[in-house]
Amino acid sequence: MNITVVKVGGAIVEDEAQLRQLIHDFKNIEGPKILVHGGGRRATKVAAQLGIESQMIGGRRVTDAAMLEVVTMVYGGLVNKHIVALLQAEGVNAVGLTGADMNILRSHRRPLKKMNVDGEERMIDFGFVGDVDYADGKTLAMLLEQGITPVVAPLTHDGEGNILNTNADTMASETAKAIAQEHDVTLIFSFEKRGVLSNPDDDNSVIPLITPELFEHYKADGTISGGMLPKIENAINALNAGVKKVVITLASAINGSDGTVIKL
Amino acid sequence: MNITVVKVGGAIVEDEAQLRQLIHDFKNIEGPKILVHGGGRRATKVAAQLGIESQMIGGRRVTDAAMLEVVTMVYGGLVNKHIVALLQAEGVNAVGLTGADMNILRSHRRPLKKMNVDGEERMIDFGFVGDVDYADGKTLAMLLEQGITPVVAPLTHDGEGNILNTNADTMASETAKAIAQEHDVTLIFSFEKRGVLSNPDDDNSVIPLITPELFEHYKADGTISGGMLPKIENAINALNAGVKKVVITLASAINGSDGTVIKL
Repeated sequence: MNITVVKVGGAIVEDEAQLRQLIHDFKNIEGPKILVHGGGRRATKVAAQLGIESQMIGGRRVTDAAMLEVVTMVYGGLVNKHIVALLQAEGVNAVGLTGADMNILRSHRRPLKKMNVDGEERMIDFGFVGDVDYADGKTLAMLLEQGITPVVAPLTHDGEGNILNTNADTMASETAKAIAQEHDVTLIFSFEKRGVLSNPDDDNSVIPLITPELFEHYKADGTISGGMLPKIENAINALNAGVKKVVITLASAINGSDGTVIKL
Repeated sequence: MNITVVKVGGAIVEDEAQLRQLIHDFKNIEGPKILVHGGGRRATKVAAQLGIESQMIGGRRVTDAAMLEVVTMVYGGLVNKHIVALLQAEGVNAVGLTGADMNILRSHRRPLKKMNVDGEERMIDFGFVGDVDYADGKTLAMLLEQGITPVVAPLTHDGEGNILNTNADTMASETAKAIAQEHDVTLIFSFEKRGVLSNPDDDNSVIPLITPELFEHYKADGTISGGMLPKIENAINALNAGVKKVVITLASAINGSDGTVIKL
């Protein structure tokens, strides 16, 4: 099968108009497909309403027991089921899944991590955060063969009864890699920019193609920096594991030919 | 297949020790099985933390837009995924589903209902509450054939993009009825009593067998009354639709031979 895995970030899924447009565009992607979503802003909002403070270190959420309940509710329930119901209304037979469901994504709790925070080396405990060990491409392919479209929330489990908060980009690339063992997979990271920009202030400066060689070049000369680095490293990692093509593009362009293509 | 559908109420799934015992007992039920759960007390608690008041009329929750978000989070996310992760830890390959997932339970929004409230006839709008139109027994059986165990949260969808809050007893009996079209189904309603009691104050007064004829008799002489009436009507309705046996029993007895058996 030719399978498309689309990752869509929180900013899109939490804006009703943009979400509905995305659902429509996603529906029109030909062939079997999987949607992986975020929901961090909504989690932060619900946490605040519950009097729980969100703590971020290096752009990643620290997940204590109370925050784990919030993300389980918001990602696995509120956001995921809303997307599933909207897809069903469009005639797409969606099923909402976390990594615990059908055991599709297993992880282990992240060990303490040495990080540079405000110029100081610190051992950081991210709490109930999972680093993925295993994704079950066969079960996902079985669902796709039945005409079912998985909608994956950024939660995994450790096999010992615990849900763990997991980065949605990682969920998408691990899912794509697992399915790529037996199928042709295109992985699309959609977000609020038109692609990887050579000038962050110019939305028209999209770099159309990045290869590992070009990436080294752009990294060395500073054209690509900051938060885009791990995204592209993630993409190249997926390509090395058998994914055919990675695209970074606007959410509204997931069904088009715009954006940045990353290829070996 | 011989399939067992177990409904477990909120009081059990929201108490960690009782939930773990239930998971263990459920695991030991032989053959393919489905778990349908509630979660109302937890929803009431989370709603209160968010400053949303729970309004109940005739024992049923009024579900406005804010409360719909709460039940979607709590039933579909918090409670459902916790149960799924615990089952996975016991080696049961569970998948958490609402009625929207794989379109397994479709409903329509309940119309205004004439009810007697405090001696006064009133038209009640229960809000985003779903009355079930259709359950897809074939898809559930397909999952069971793959060795997958559905864990169903009390939420349905209307096919137009809306999640609807739905009574968990109804979810269980509609699920059982749909599967009974092609399989032998036992439906177990588990709760905090040993069965249907002839004397509500005496836990040892379990009525071992109820047939439709005996039910009419017990109803007429007042032995069975109140909240137990719709439960048994629901059970007889399921039997008439092809379910082989309904059992009302303690949560800790779902794997035993205690409780009240309801048969045609």
